Amino acid sequence: MSDRHFTDRLLEAVETKRSQVVVGLDPDYASLPPQVIAALEGPEFAEERVLGEGRGCGQELERKAACYRLFLRGILEALQEEAVAVKLQVAYFEALGAAGWAVYEETARLARELGYLVIADVKRGDIGSTAEAYAAAHLDHVGADAVTVNPYFGTDGLEPFFRRAREQGKGVFVLVKTSNPSSAELQDLELAGGGRVYERVADLVSEWGRGTEGRLGYRLIGAVVGGTHPEEGSRLRARLERVPFLVPGYGAQGARAEDVVCLFDARGTGAVVNSARAILYAYRKRPEVNWREAARQEAREMKDALWRVTGRG
Amino acid sequence: MSDRHFTDRLLEAVETKRSQVVVGLDPDYASLPPQVIAALEGPEFAEERVLGEGRGCGQELERKAACYRLFLRGILEALQEEAVAVKLQVAYFEALGAAGWAVYEETARLARELGYLVIADVKRGDIGSTAEAYAAAHLDHVGADAVTVNPYFGTDGLEPFFRRAREQGKGVFVLVKTSNPSSAELQDLELAGGGRVYERVADLVSEWGRGTEGRLGYRLIGAVVGGTHPEEGSRLRARLERVPFLVPGYGAQGARAEDVVCLFDARGTGAVVNSARAILYAYRKRPEVNWREAARQEAREMKDALWRVTGRG
Repeated sequence: MSDRHFTDRLLEAVETKRSQVVVGLDPDYASLPPQVIAALEGPEFAEERVLGEGRGCGQELERKAACYRLFLRGILEALQEEAVAVKLQVAYFEALGAAGWAVYEETARLARELGYLVIADVKRGDIGSTAEAYAAAHLDHVGADAVTVNPYFGTDGLEPFFRRAREQGKGVFVLVKTSNPSSAELQDLELAGGGRVYERVADLVSEWGRGTEGRLGYRLIGAVVGGTHPEEGSRLRARLERVPFLVPGYGAQGARAEDVVCLFDARGTGAVVNSARAILYAYRKRPEVNWREAARQEAREMKDALWRVTGRG
Repeated sequence: MSDRHFTDRLLEAVETKRSQVVVGLDPDYASLPPQVIAALEGPEFAEERVLGEGRGCGQELERKAACYRLFLRGILEALQEEAVAVKLQVAYFEALGAAGWAVYEETARLARELGYLVIADVKRGDIGSTAEAYAAAHLDHVGADAVTVNPYFGTDGLEPFFRRAREQGKGVFVLVKTSNPSSAELQDLELAGGGRVYERVADLVSEWGRGTEGRLGYRLIGAVVGGTHPEEGSRLRARLERVPFLVPGYGAQGARAEDVVCLFDARGTGAVVNSARAILYAYRKRPEVNWREAARQEAREMKDALWRVTGRG
């Protein structure tokens, strides 16, 4: 079981690659490098275009899906040394329907083959029977190593994910404090018994994960804690000793290395940080290199900044 | 705009069909009538099987997807007089990957053609840019008339859905108090300022929907309120005067007509009630008729029970 323990594998990859970077795969057609779109017009992709039409996916959606496929393959091949995991934001694939779903599955498979851990960023939450179908979809069928989930339904709505943690070593990151501006509206409400809603969710995450520790001391049930709220983040790190953090908000959403250092433990581990747009579309601010190299350089800078600020290098 | 106002259309359909029933489309392979699975083995579906393989979806998943297609078509054709809307539970389609996604889209299209309102039960919630992709997927591309969403991110994570309500008359049902046993863990937490978390969410729903009233007085921003908590439901009905309710929990989850009557307004309107498993798989308890007729009879009983208990007939 230990060699299948998601958090052990994640934190071991951090040491091997000397990287705490997760690259977010949020493909957005309007932001793709022009070279990717141009490449799909060429004769070498004629077969891919025909395949798409055979799938009945509609020509325009399938053309976009083929662009995503080409783009994400390039990103994955370029970032192997820089990132330990990929976080696939399923919304961007859903927006292309069945054609997008096929690319979501293929990209997850390719990422695993290239040595990344795969986090399906689906933020699902529902009643138990429905949650079972979601867990089957993303952890079994797509084969993701970990998944993000929403806590609003409480324990029974998350149990199908937790069971796959206990039985198969899958990782589950529960939304605790999100990175967006409106996160305070619900998450920061003060409770009659003291503390805030997100702190109570944090305590639930702590209860849910008990007994899932790996060799490195960290559990399979983790927390999503946005990098844009350093003060709340510091308190959460102190409160959740063995809980791994998945930290969004770096880069395009404004968080820098100094903002997220508080989310690591005293040894500079226990957290990984996600950046999507700033890495994927780095070609815009690095016109002197090709889009793959631009993404690699951006990820490399982030990797070095995090390693330094956490006192590792 | 008025003829595109989701809630007007929903409540008009209630009067026309004399039904407050929403049929939940939660296809589960293990529960399908044996006749549906047998039918797919026959020569008349050879073309459908080949089409599935051409899509590259994997033979087993595509076979299940073809079963769902056949089953859901039968259900939709049987229930036109009994149900005003369908609620597609996307989790069950996701569990079949791209093949399932294609059936999700086709079923939504067929339901519209047969005169049902279409509610995409996706319970999505994320940061604004991601929520935009989800809204595009389900409201634009799939073309659902309404969608369910999760409030944990707060306003900015829901704005892409609300914009489509204001501009296109789409409906948005926000999770307020869910039907599952663990719903109290987070939703019932008592707040320092008085009231509970779900009541604060209810107040947000009220703020979010202001100005979206239709001719019948009800708004486009509605609330999901489980039928399994009559006491909380009564208080929510009083608190949310112009907010339409989508009520899950009827049938298989245990709620009966007497339990949900408190979720309707004084005129016996303003809410619709969903039942999935009890209708879809009614063939098990009605072996004397075929599976389509069994579903129709079950929906008809529910329709009559609701109409009676709300003082309409």
